[in-house]
Order: sequence, then C-alpha cells, then structure tokens
Amino acid sequence: LVEQDWECIQALLADLAEPDIAHALLPGLARAERVRLMQLLPPERASSVYAYLDTGLQTELLEDLTDEEKTRLIGELSYDDAAAILDELPDEHTDSLMEMLPEADQQVLKALLAFPEHSAGRLMTPEFVALSPAWTVREALDHVREQAHVGETLNTLFITDDAGRLLGWISLQDLLLSRPRTRVEQHYHRDVIRIHTQEDREEAARLIGHYDLQALPVVDEDNILAGIITVDDVMDVVEKEDTEDFHKMGSVGVLNLSVKDATAGMLYRKRIGWLVILVVVNIMSGAAIAFFEAAIEKVVALVFFLPMVIASGGNAGAQASTLMVRALATGDVQARDWFRLWGKELVVALGLGTTLGLAVWLIGLWLGGTEVAIAIAISMVLVVITGSMFGMVLPFILARFRLDPATASAPLVTSVVDVAGIVMYFAVATLVLRMAGM
Amino acid sequence: LVEQDWECIQALLADLAEPDIAHALLPGLARAERVRLMQLLPPERASSVYAYLDTGLQTELLEDLTDEEKTRLIGELSYDDAAAILDELPDEHTDSLMEMLPEADQQVLKALLAFPEHSAGRLMTPEFVALSPAWTVREALDHVREQAHVGETLNTLFITDDAGRLLGWISLQDLLLSRPRTRVEQHYHRDVIRIHTQEDREEAARLIGHYDLQALPVVDEDNILAGIITVDDVMDVVEKEDTEDFHKMGSVGVLNLSVKDATAGMLYRKRIGWLVILVVVNIMSGAAIAFFEAAIEKVVALVFFLPMVIASGGNAGAQASTLMVRALATGDVQARDWFRLWGKELVVALGLGTTLGLAVWLIGLWLGGTEVAIAIAISMVLVVITGSMFGMVLPFILARFRLDPATASAPLVTSVVDVAGIVMYFAVATLVLRMAGM
Repeated sequence: LVEQDWECIQALLADLAEPDIAHALLPGLARAERVRLMQLLPPERASSVYAYLDTGLQTELLEDLTDEEKTRLIGELSYDDAAAILDELPDEHTDSLMEMLPEADQQVLKALLAFPEHSAGRLMTPEFVALSPAWTVREALDHVREQAHVGETLNTLFITDDAGRLLGWISLQDLLLSRPRTRVEQHYHRDVIRIHTQEDREEAARLIGHYDLQALPVVDEDNILAGIITVDDVMDVVEKEDTEDFHKMGSVGVLNLSVKDATAGMLYRKRIGWLVILVVVNIMSGAAIAFFEAAIEKVVALVFFLPMVIASGGNAGAQASTLMVRALATGDVQARDWFRLWGKELVVALGLGTTLGLAVWLIGLWLGGTEVAIAIAISMVLVVITGSMFGMVLPFILARFRLDPATASAPLVTSVVDVAGIVMYFAVATLVLRMAGM
Repeated sequence: LVEQDWECIQALLADLAEPDIAHALLPGLARAERVRLMQLLPPERASSVYAYLDTGLQTELLEDLTDEEKTRLIGELSYDDAAAILDELPDEHTDSLMEMLPEADQQVLKALLAFPEHSAGRLMTPEFVALSPAWTVREALDHVREQAHVGETLNTLFITDDAGRLLGWISLQDLLLSRPRTRVEQHYHRDVIRIHTQEDREEAARLIGHYDLQALPVVDEDNILAGIITVDDVMDVVEKEDTEDFHKMGSVGVLNLSVKDATAGMLYRKRIGWLVILVVVNIMSGAAIAFFEAAIEKVVALVFFLPMVIASGGNAGAQASTLMVRALATGDVQARDWFRLWGKELVVALGLGTTLGLAVWLIGLWLGGTEVAIAIAISMVLVVITGSMFGMVLPFILARFRLDPATASAPLVTSVVDVAGIVMYFAVATLVLRMAGM
C-alpha cells in the first residue's frame, strides 16, 4: 500500500470477502488510504463493505467522501441495512444523507425509522416478493423471476390480496413443483405465522426459532404485509440479546458498542452503578457481623469458617439463578413452571447442602472441635438451601413484575445471600455453642 | 379428547403448527392418546412433529408404534433431522430403526453419524442442489425445478465439477436474472466460503454469521461437496453454545437437557463439583482471616467493613470477566487484543476503585474514625483494581491454554479475589493502624 500499487491492490480486494475488508483490512489503515480503497471498490461491493464497518469508521468516511459517492453508497444498500446505518449515525449526518437520496427512498426509510427502536418494524425489510392467489403458477413464477432482484429471500413467498393484506405463504419449492396452469390459491398455506410491526424484535427471533421459519411476515394493524424478517436478520438480534443477558448476569449495564470500541468512560459508567448498589447490600453483611461481635470475640475460630459457609450459599444461589435466567430467556421454562421447578430445586439444594455440610463437618472436626463442626455443618446446609431457593425464585419474581430476569445477576444473588448467610451462621453457631455450654 | 371426537380433533390438529403440537399439546396427554394423535396426523406432518419432540417422548413413542409406522416416521424426515434423532435415541432403538430403513437411507445416515459429535459433518445435510458449470442457465433452472424437493434451500446453489468437487456458488436470484442461453460458468462466484467436515460446528456458526451466508458448503479432504449447513441449522447451535457459556459462567457443568427435563440427580452432579472446588478456595480465605486474628481482636470494627471491601473486588472482577468471556465468545475480541484491553481495564478499574474508595472513606469516617476510614479506602482501591485485573486476564489465560474462557465464572473469580482481598485488606489495615500508633 505504501508503494501505491493500485492495480495490485484492486486484484487483492477482488479476492477478499466484504466482511473481511471491513473488519480486518480497513481499520488498520490511515484515514486517506481508507477513502482511497473504498473508491477502488465497485459500487455494490463498497456499499456492502460500508454496511459491515463500525459506526465510528462509517461516520469518518462520510466526512471524507463526495456527496455523489455518499448517495451511491447508501442507495445501493437494501432498505433494512440503510435504515440500520442511518439510525446509528450522528443526527446531522442522517439528515444531510436523507436529503441527497431520491424522494421514494426517503419515504421508505423515514417510515422504517419511525418504528420504535427494538420493534419488528425496525428490523424488517420492505423488499419481498408478493403473489396474488388468482395467478396461475406460471404467472407467479414469471413474477418471481421479474422481482428476483428485489426479494431478500425467494425460499418463502407471501400471498396477498389486492389491498396488500397477508393471506398466506408458499415455498418456492412447492411453487416449482406445482403444475404451471393450476392457480396459486390451490397450493398456498393459509396458516401463516406473522408478527405485528410494533412487537418486540425478540419476539420475532423467538417465532423464527420456534417455527424454523426462513422468513417471518410483518403486518400492520390492518393485516397489510409491510415487510419480512429473514432468519439471518435475527441471528444478529439473538447475539445482541444474549450479550445483553450475559452482561446483566455479570452486573454490567447494557453496552451498545463492542468492548473493544467502548471508551474507558463508557465502561466505567456501565459498571459503577451496580458496584455501588452492591456495596450498600454488603453494608448489611457488615452490620450482621458487627451484631455478632460478642460471639466472634468468644470463639475467633468461627471467623475462619465464615467465608467457606457464606460463599457456598452465594455460589449455589448463583448456579440456580443462572440456570433459571437462561431457561426463561430461551423459552425453555415459562413463569408458570416455577412451582414444579421449585420442588426440584429444593431436592437438589438439600443434596448439595448435605454434601457440603459433611465436608465442612470433617474440616471442622479436624480444625475446631466437635461443637464448631456441628455448628458449621448445620449452618452450611441451611445457607446452601437458602441461597439456592433465593437464586431460583428471584428470576421468576422479576419476570412476574415484567422486569428482566437477568437482573438476578450472580453478584446480586451472592451479595444478598451473604447477608442472610452471616445471620444464619452466627445464629446457629451461638445456639450450638450455648447448648454445648461454651 | 375424552369424548374421542376424532373428527373434531383432526380439524383442530390441521390448524396447529407442528412445533406447537410437539411442545404444547402432546406432552400433556396420556401415553395412549399421544400415540392415537400421532396416527391421526398425515405422515409428513407426523414426522415433523416427531422431530420437535423431546427425546423422552420420542423413545416412548417408538415403543408404542408398529414397525411400519416407525419406518415411515423416520423415512419422511430430512437426513440431518433423522441423524440428530437417531443420535439421541438409546442405542437399541437406533439399531433396530436403522435395520428397518431402505439400504440407501441406512448408508447416508451411517455416514453422517460417523462424523464426530460437534463437527460440521454431523450438522450438515447431504440434500443440496448442485449445478454443473457447463450447463446453460436454462438447463440449470430445469435441474433446480426437478431437484426442488431435495434441496434444503434454493436461495444458494452450489457449482461442482464432474467428480463432485466444489467450484463455487450462485444465488437463485442471479440465476433467474441471467439470460437462459448463457452458461452457468459465466455467472457463478469462485470465491466460496467453505468448511471441512471435521471442523467444529461452532466454526460453521461463526462463518455463517460473519459472512451472512444463507448456506455454507461442507467439503471433505478432497474438496468434494459433502453437504450444506443452512442458517436455521446454526441458530440452534448458537443457542446451545450460548446456553453452555451461560451455565459455565454460573459455575454449572454442561447440561445436555433442558432444566425442565433434567432430573434432580443430574442437576446435583452438574453443580456439586464446582461448589466443592470453591469451598477449597474459600478455605484459603478463612486461613487468611485466621492469620490476621490479632488485628481483628484489636479492632473488631475492621470486620464490619470486611464484606464491603472484599465483595467489591469480587464484583468488579465478575464484571470484567463477563465482558471478556462474552467478547471472546462472539469473536468481538481476539486473544491478541489482550494488551490493549488490559490498559483500558486498568483505567476503568482505577476509576471504579477511586469512586468506591471515596464512598467507603465517608462511611468509615462516620462509623469508625479517621484511621479506619483511611485503611478501608486504600484497601478498596487496591482490591477493586486487583479484582478487575484478575477477572480480565483469566479468560485470556484460559484461552491461551486452549481452555474455555467461560471457565472464568463469576463464582470462581469472586472466590479467588476474596482470598487476595482479605490479605490486602488486613495488611493495609494493620499497617495504617500501626502508623497511627493504634
């Protein structure tokens, strides 16, 4: 690149896939070289590469390109990709870009951007192939051929009436296998899974996953087919939503950027909130310990076993909440299943508590004597059961109040269980030691 | 159903989608009713419903159906679905079912099942439409029409030579738009993303996501096209892999069943291992506390602030490891990025530590006096930085040793950081208090 051997570079570019140019090649280049490379690409490829770039580089490029180049860049994109890019760019760029586009494109993009941020309407593309039920199979196939450049997918074709209302669907396979002179209405399926434009994109992902759909039709309040969501669109949604859940489970706020691109300030803001809340919870742990100062002063050995017992409760709770949060997120478990699962969790927690209780009983016998051993074994069983139950139930309570179950993060469950654990531990210990006359 | 009004039931079944029959209707029925319902369904739908059932119900049904019914059930399925089912059924069922199938089907299924469990070969389906480069577009389209019932997707078609070696691909759109008398070789793309049969299915999911593919060709060591993996196949893979990562982050072993279906014994076994390991780590925390017994006896107030400081280190560490584990899993961050991220994490951790340090300094001033306030503020900063650094680096170390980064679970990070935190806390406190002459 230093030698500016553009021909050689052009040959190299032809061999690279668009996502690789966007992710591997461009970010490493100087700003001017990046612009030059984009100009070397054929228009269609340049648009595709542009769609794969991070928002930061997209904005930068807009500043460096001519108006004509910009318009072509956006104009070559499919509507859903263009809408996604316009949505993320700074407002001043969005407005000036919009004005450069043809009137028809402007209208479509404005309509898409008017849908709420995480809605099915925002995710869909209005580029689909619709068939009339009155057409013959031959006419329908001719229409598919004419419209092939428009449709995002041809595997699934949708049937609409004259007003554009969704009637059903047919697979291209079935259409190709039907006799050419028969009519579409004899072949298409009336039972069509659809989603409303205003519904959440997560629901779209769930429907596509649950019914193994290639494309999901999106309709407005009058059942008019407004667009389609294809399976590759929702793969990104699933990844983003899973990432959000992961971060929430680790007590990190929702991050719209990749960790690599987020600034230190952003990361700080996404993390400090939960850390402060958890400090407040842990003040209660401290207060609980202070309350039992007398017991601690009498048998300092009790403090030795404290971390073991308390942490086990928190860990068992973190396991239980992790299992439930994920099962609720995948739809594996519904809110109504909580009671059946509660019973099973109780059995599991009893088993875990007893095993760990036996283990610390042995350690207690060895290091602290019979009374201490009994005290820590009993409190271990209680703490593990309490922790498991709390970790299991909290996600369901959150779901009931329409909050995200993933808020029941491992650190939150651990901190809350710590408080309960400390109280139980010292209460049991005080009781056992008093009975033993110590 | 009680009144056995089969006609009405059949009408009802016709309106229900196959996944709904499998997930919502059948599990709630008695065993005999379930068999009867399956027999009422047209063969193709029965197979599809059967593929959506849980393994438990699949096994049960096999015991209740006649040999002829069983053969039809499996025979109607696509090869990848059939292989997945045969794989999960108990061995004796797999063998007897295999023997009932036509010789040709047996060979294909045996070949698929011979691939390693999580390989691309096991995930692929051998049902694809391949075109010859020498054909005209018209011949190619005729071939697509003839083979339409075979292909899992028609959006992407693959080009092979006479020996079946993969040469490239063309979209159905492009084929439909090309002039009928031109030859396929004039139109198809040579730059084809492919995967080897023996590679991991996660890599297949990554390629499909990264390159936004509709279908990924799977080739053997001679570059012969053996099958294709479609985007809907990998949606399930992504969900499973994310669930595994979630469970690992919560210190739960890999569970092959849904939480709903797993027995209490299974759940116990998946959780006890990590709990015991974590108890061992926490023994060290206890030992650290015991080591500082003298300091505790002198200023019992120090114990009050212990949970707050220690837990904050663990929480900051859990946040950092969550961010890194997820970023490594999505490919957002590579192992080589660790140093750049390490610098950023240090800045973030400094910010977090200082904020929390200030907060506990105020609490300390109020509840414990100047010396205690200084001691806990300093140790808070140190512990939060240590926790963050450990949580951030551990996933990269695990990745370097080719272990799963998700093993750096919140409970593990928290427990390890606890030990370091306790030592730092008491060391700093002892030092500050000694300097203050207490």
